Amino acid sequence: DAPLVFIAGPCVIEGRAFALETASRLAEIFAGLGVGWIYKSSFDKANRSSADSFRGVGLAEGLDILAEVRDRVGVPVLTDVHEKEQVADVARVVDMLQTPAFLCRQTDFIQCVAGAGKPVNIKKGQFLSPWDMRNVLAKAVATGNDQIALCERGASFGYGNLVVDMRGLPIMAATGHPVVFDATHSVQLPGAQGNASGGQREFVPALARAAVATGVAAVFMETHPSPDEAPCDGPNMVPFSELAPLVKQLQSIDRVIKMGS
Amino acid sequence: DAPLVFIAGPCVIEGRAFALETASRLAEIFAGLGVGWIYKSSFDKANRSSADSFRGVGLAEGLDILAEVRDRVGVPVLTDVHEKEQVADVARVVDMLQTPAFLCRQTDFIQCVAGAGKPVNIKKGQFLSPWDMRNVLAKAVATGNDQIALCERGASFGYGNLVVDMRGLPIMAATGHPVVFDATHSVQLPGAQGNASGGQREFVPALARAAVATGVAAVFMETHPSPDEAPCDGPNMVPFSELAPLVKQLQSIDRVIKMGS
Amino acid sequence: DAPLVFIAGPCVIEGRAFALETASRLAEIFAGLGVGWIYKSSFDKANRSSADSFRGVGLAEGLDILAEVRDRVGVPVLTDVHEKEQVADVARVVDMLQTPAFLCRQTDFIQCVAGAGKPVNIKKGQFLSPWDMRNVLAKAVATGNDQIALCERGASFGYGNLVVDMRGLPIMAATGHPVVFDATHSVQLPGAQGNASGGQREFVPALARAAVATGVAAVFMETHPSPDEAPCDGPNMVPFSELAPLVKQLQSIDRVIKMGS
Amino acid sequence: DAPLVFIAGPCVIEGRAFALETASRLAEIFAGLGVGWIYKSSFDKANRSSADSFRGVGLAEGLDILAEVRDRVGVPVLTDVHEKEQVADVARVVDMLQTPAFLCRQTDFIQCVAGAGKPVNIKKGQFLSPWDMRNVLAKAVATGNDQIALCERGASFGYGNLVVDMRGLPIMAATGHPVVFDATHSVQLPGAQGNASGGQREFVPALARAAVATGVAAVFMETHPSPDEAPCDGPNMVPFSELAPLVKQLQSIDRVIKMGS
Repeated sequence: DAPLVFIAGPCVIEGRAFALETASRLAEIFAGLGVGWIYKSSFDKANRSSADSFRGVGLAEGLDILAEVRDRVGVPVLTDVHEKEQVADVARVVDMLQTPAFLCRQTDFIQCVAGAGKPVNIKKGQFLSPWDMRNVLAKAVATGNDQIALCERGASFGYGNLVVDMRGLPIMAATGHPVVFDATHSVQLPGAQGNASGGQREFVPALARAAVATGVAAVFMETHPSPDEAPCDGPNMVPFSELAPLVKQLQSIDRVIKMGS
Repeated sequence: DAPLVFIAGPCVIEGRAFALETASRLAEIFAGLGVGWIYKSSFDKANRSSADSFRGVGLAEGLDILAEVRDRVGVPVLTDVHEKEQVADVARVVDMLQTPAFLCRQTDFIQCVAGAGKPVNIKKGQFLSPWDMRNVLAKAVATGNDQIALCERGASFGYGNLVVDMRGLPIMAATGHPVVFDATHSVQLPGAQGNASGGQREFVPALARAAVATGVAAVFMETHPSPDEAPCDGPNMVPFSELAPLVKQLQSIDRVIKMGS
Repeated sequence: DAPLVFIAGPCVIEGRAFALETASRLAEIFAGLGVGWIYKSSFDKANRSSADSFRGVGLAEGLDILAEVRDRVGVPVLTDVHEKEQVADVARVVDMLQTPAFLCRQTDFIQCVAGAGKPVNIKKGQFLSPWDMRNVLAKAVATGNDQIALCERGASFGYGNLVVDMRGLPIMAATGHPVVFDATHSVQLPGAQGNASGGQREFVPALARAAVATGVAAVFMETHPSPDEAPCDGPNMVPFSELAPLVKQLQSIDRVIKMGS
Repeated sequence: DAPLVFIAGPCVIEGRAFALETASRLAEIFAGLGVGWIYKSSFDKANRSSADSFRGVGLAEGLDILAEVRDRVGVPVLTDVHEKEQVADVARVVDMLQTPAFLCRQTDFIQCVAGAGKPVNIKKGQFLSPWDMRNVLAKAVATGNDQIALCERGASFGYGNLVVDMRGLPIMAATGHPVVFDATHSVQLPGAQGNASGGQREFVPALARAAVATGVAAVFMETHPSPDEAPCDGPNMVPFSELAPLVKQLQSIDRVIKMGS
């Protein structure tokens, strides 16, 4: 029962200076609390609600920026991939790969990502039961890669809404693999803004505390210096200014669960 | 932010000696942990899946037993009512009344129960959103009774299953009224046994910890010396033997949330 | 496979003249199409979202009006009951009783209503699976009354929304009892107006056609001369002016299903 | 309001002789009823629950077989694509392309498929509301291809279950694009067999009739000479022997809806 770690960062790479600066500030916050963390940011948003939405800086520049973040800030980095042909390039740069929830059932894709040999965070589809992740996991470990984490990000609950079934966390943990709780996508309201998803940032702390209280390996949390000005996922990202007290509280709960005090 | 309290006891009054003995044992457990609690047990199960299921000792004997539990064990008692004509008798004996989830929208019934002047625990219907409890609450307080608690016990999630949306707890707490989390009915599987509901006792600790981590006033938990031999709700009740460590853990989480350590 | 019949009328009895006039107009419409029907109207709305909502003329006057409708218009009448003490009085007047969806699991209530000996339309709870209605049905027929119909009115689908699972209609029909499709409550949006339910009148025709195409015994449909001025359920009632073409279309589909042409 | 057409065929291409024989038999059935149809079969099942499941004959052989079916049986053919690199090859052979439900939000993929210029059947994700298909449609038509159909195949309803919300059919039809109802995937029970999805073949007729009664352009239906021996989707495919009476009944309902008799 290792202490809780975090996967955190802005939804999308908004530029080189932005990435370096946000990573530095997050590094200070997490170092101040003595918490392990991984920097997360996307080079491409491949499944936005609308084709007109901002997508990102692209693969080549994105990877170059992430490499620089890793080297200069000294933090491991994670990004998500969307297609098989991206995997080799991304795996050369990042410390952990992530697969999108909608793609969790694409056998070739999951096996291609797992086959790259780096740790992988597999997001559970909004349409999948927690126990069905065993089949997804089996596909991934069949490639010989055992460093696979399973990530909860909410399940479809009627239209335009997600619900987190906290039973899913221990169910997935029973596989023996680390379970990650994605606290910020779990509060998305899919399609709620017509041509973009809405979000309920105000529920991130309650859901994150709840998930940590069930006992998880990591919390995934998108965070931004000014979420309301972010080009994507603004409604559900946590402002930097609110991060430290929340992380501290989650640490305390994690200690109660894993160390009994 | 008062410390967490518990509403606990066997689902149904199985007899006088049984009620006195279970209340005494629970009193020891809770006293040992320094936790406030209320004894809960039902005199009638009025909405069982099947008409052939065990229903209980009935109103007169049930109230007599609850009064004796209260006097001899020295613990406040709670029971649920199902019809307006029961309310006056029950309110004379118990310290807190409870209304069933299926009946949360029956205006006359809710106002009759609230009108008795005792504190009331109103269970949220499995078909209701957390914000719709404001209307239910308004009906209750319109009687002049402000001691109304709101209780989460899971929402319909497809067939034969409930899900606890942890966002509902802070949403209901925003009314200013105490929020109770019913940890054992939330793991019921409605109708799962054909002519009775099933349950997933193994998820009670995870859900209770999660709910307490969001910040609640009380946890409701049905508990039994030998759940597998209980005449009702066996699959979801917590064995007495597992109660103390769980309550202790919930206390610790509650302290983190309410006192910061 | 008897031809499709209708249960139709305004949600609530708005007054004596109103009831007589609406029943007469509906009688003309249904007679013109050669379709059997029952007049439905409520004397009390006992489970409105808010305690401030209009409730109706009450039991005594309501029954008196329904008796007059029956005698003067020559149509069988149906109304819903909410409490055991109403049953005997109501059963003396109406041709068919109806029980509310929220109350489908109250054993004593269901048995009291069925025990009155008149045909009963039992609405399925929004929280119940279609196969769980077997248990409800068993409670009712245990009273010796075999004239029990089962009624679909939508299932909880996330918050503030209902979905009709058309599989439920043949599942309930497999009991051998008549299945009624409630086309207007199935399009309610529970709680959507804050202190009242909303509705999507525009989907009544599509859902009614779909249900009839699966093969049902009856369609329940609330209808009103001017739904937008109705004191309750306006958003989901069908205007009188749109009734005849819809009923005719449903008749045609019913003939294809039951007679092959 | 063109008469109802069908997209029909075995889930997967089991071999050359099998494909030719099934297409010939289906051609006879549909010709006998005077109904337009398209032959559907997959060359690869890319998102099976388990990596050990049968996947198909592969791209090259599959396309060769489909071309032969088209030429020798004289029926237009449809198949589904899973990755951008397959699109050009597939589009050269088939008359209509289809995209998988899980992939409906992948912007590049949807635009690549639509960009091939052939008609496309886009399946709605199990996690998407019907009105969110407007955004998906907008991505597709932005490529200059206006021949886009939208397909309903059920929405997530709790775990291991799908529900068809019939309101979704008119909602999608309001875009002006043809709506297809997938009657056989809508009765799948995702993950119900542990490492494969289950299905409820017995509900295909009721759901298909219901959908046609709302008014749709086409019904998609997987069908097989002996579903219980099929390498995939057996539990939800319709046996050839039951096809003709069902198609005939659907035709009759379609006529009532579109021609008023």
